[in-house]
Amino acid sequence: MKNNRFTRRNILGLATALSSFALTSTQTFAEISSHSDIVLSPKPKKIGIVLFNGFETLDVFGPVQMWGKLKDYEIVTVCQNGGIARSSQGLDTVCRYSFVDAPQFEILMIPGGGGTRKEVNNTVMLDFLRHQNRATEWTTSVCTGAAVLARAGILDNHRATTNKNAWVWATSNSKSVKWQPHARWVFDGKYVTSSGVSAGTDMALALVKQLYGQEIAQQTARLAEYVWNGDPTNDPFAIDSK
Amino acid sequence: MKNNRFTRRNILGLATALSSFALTSTQTFAEISSHSDIVLSPKPKKIGIVLFNGFETLDVFGPVQMWGKLKDYEIVTVCQNGGIARSSQGLDTVCRYSFVDAPQFEILMIPGGGGTRKEVNNTVMLDFLRHQNRATEWTTSVCTGAAVLARAGILDNHRATTNKNAWVWATSNSKSVKWQPHARWVFDGKYVTSSGVSAGTDMALALVKQLYGQEIAQQTARLAEYVWNGDPTNDPFAIDSK
Repeated sequence: MKNNRFTRRNILGLATALSSFALTSTQTFAEISSHSDIVLSPKPKKIGIVLFNGFETLDVFGPVQMWGKLKDYEIVTVCQNGGIARSSQGLDTVCRYSFVDAPQFEILMIPGGGGTRKEVNNTVMLDFLRHQNRATEWTTSVCTGAAVLARAGILDNHRATTNKNAWVWATSNSKSVKWQPHARWVFDGKYVTSSGVSAGTDMALALVKQLYGQEIAQQTARLAEYVWNGDPTNDPFAIDSK
Repeated sequence: MKNNRFTRRNILGLATALSSFALTSTQTFAEISSHSDIVLSPKPKKIGIVLFNGFETLDVFGPVQMWGKLKDYEIVTVCQNGGIARSSQGLDTVCRYSFVDAPQFEILMIPGGGGTRKEVNNTVMLDFLRHQNRATEWTTSVCTGAAVLARAGILDNHRATTNKNAWVWATSNSKSVKWQPHARWVFDGKYVTSSGVSAGTDMALALVKQLYGQEIAQQTARLAEYVWNGDPTNDPFAIDSK
């Protein structure tokens, strides 16, 4: 049990802490914010990130880094039943919403990861994505997240890309998608799909450029000391480059 | 309240879910794993990531992506009081340990972020870092995490680097550190410090190379479709390059 230290004591401590939270949720939420430099001022729009067990870490947190300080958008997380989602790398992220109480998101993002192998067959997940997609401004994916969108029929007749290491499996989820084997990311209407894992960070900055212009996108990258690959055709991992 | 949907209902749901967890914690932990492709087999060593409110997202999750599948290391999180830590970008991560019940980590990592402005004055944090550092194999930081290590005296007489956008503040925390203005990351003995935010991802891969060799490091990068900057002297954000 040495490595399995998510013990009863820790869980009880967390549950107790969160129960206290519940009693004064607004105050505690504000208190957390006042305890750091985190600015959580009201923002009119939401970026909803769909989590599930076995999501790939950087698929989520690369975009979160680049989208986290946009002036009009707050990032929120959603899981089927709320609670927490464990990444493929073993860390747990809190889901703010469940599929039942989630609001409409202006930007929807679904990551990839080993968990997508199960999610492509999860009809509750596919229904939620279709429901959200009816009113999103942008529907996006990173890595094999595109396989789940594809299975939901959301990418039918659209150009899209996905993880290049998992290309055969991911693209097998739909014959109605115009899969692009050579693309760091693809914009097609409101649909934005990226290649594997770290490609999501480049895609996220491309969406920042689309929303706020090149200067804000470059500034966002610079603040993160990130060398942005700003060219979607520059795909070092393209299928046809192998 | 539109943007503040961390409501009583959600929190209670989470607390209830985690209380159920507590009753059958081992089974539920295993169940989570069996519900996805997450492999959580026993591993002999721990990478302990120190979290606090206002940590910078990519400082943590870039390295987590690159360290998450190492054969000998499990990644765990620790906060002063356990519970959750909210990043500067607004997402909440569960802390597996508190400073009281944390085991000795073989690799210690502290990220940067706005929260470090408070943590450099947090004597409980500084004591915890000094205590861990006595027996780590590697003590590492990303971004302004180095300012906290420096304030704890851990980097005295060592070469180190930190965030280049926050250089003046970060380096002001200690005159006893040999601060390196031109370095993507710095190895000095067991101390490994990186420049800002995304530099941590490159540093993390450099540590993978140190532990498992160049081929495993390149393979790890390739699986994440990540173009690794493997040269610590290649620092596009260096102070002397500005």
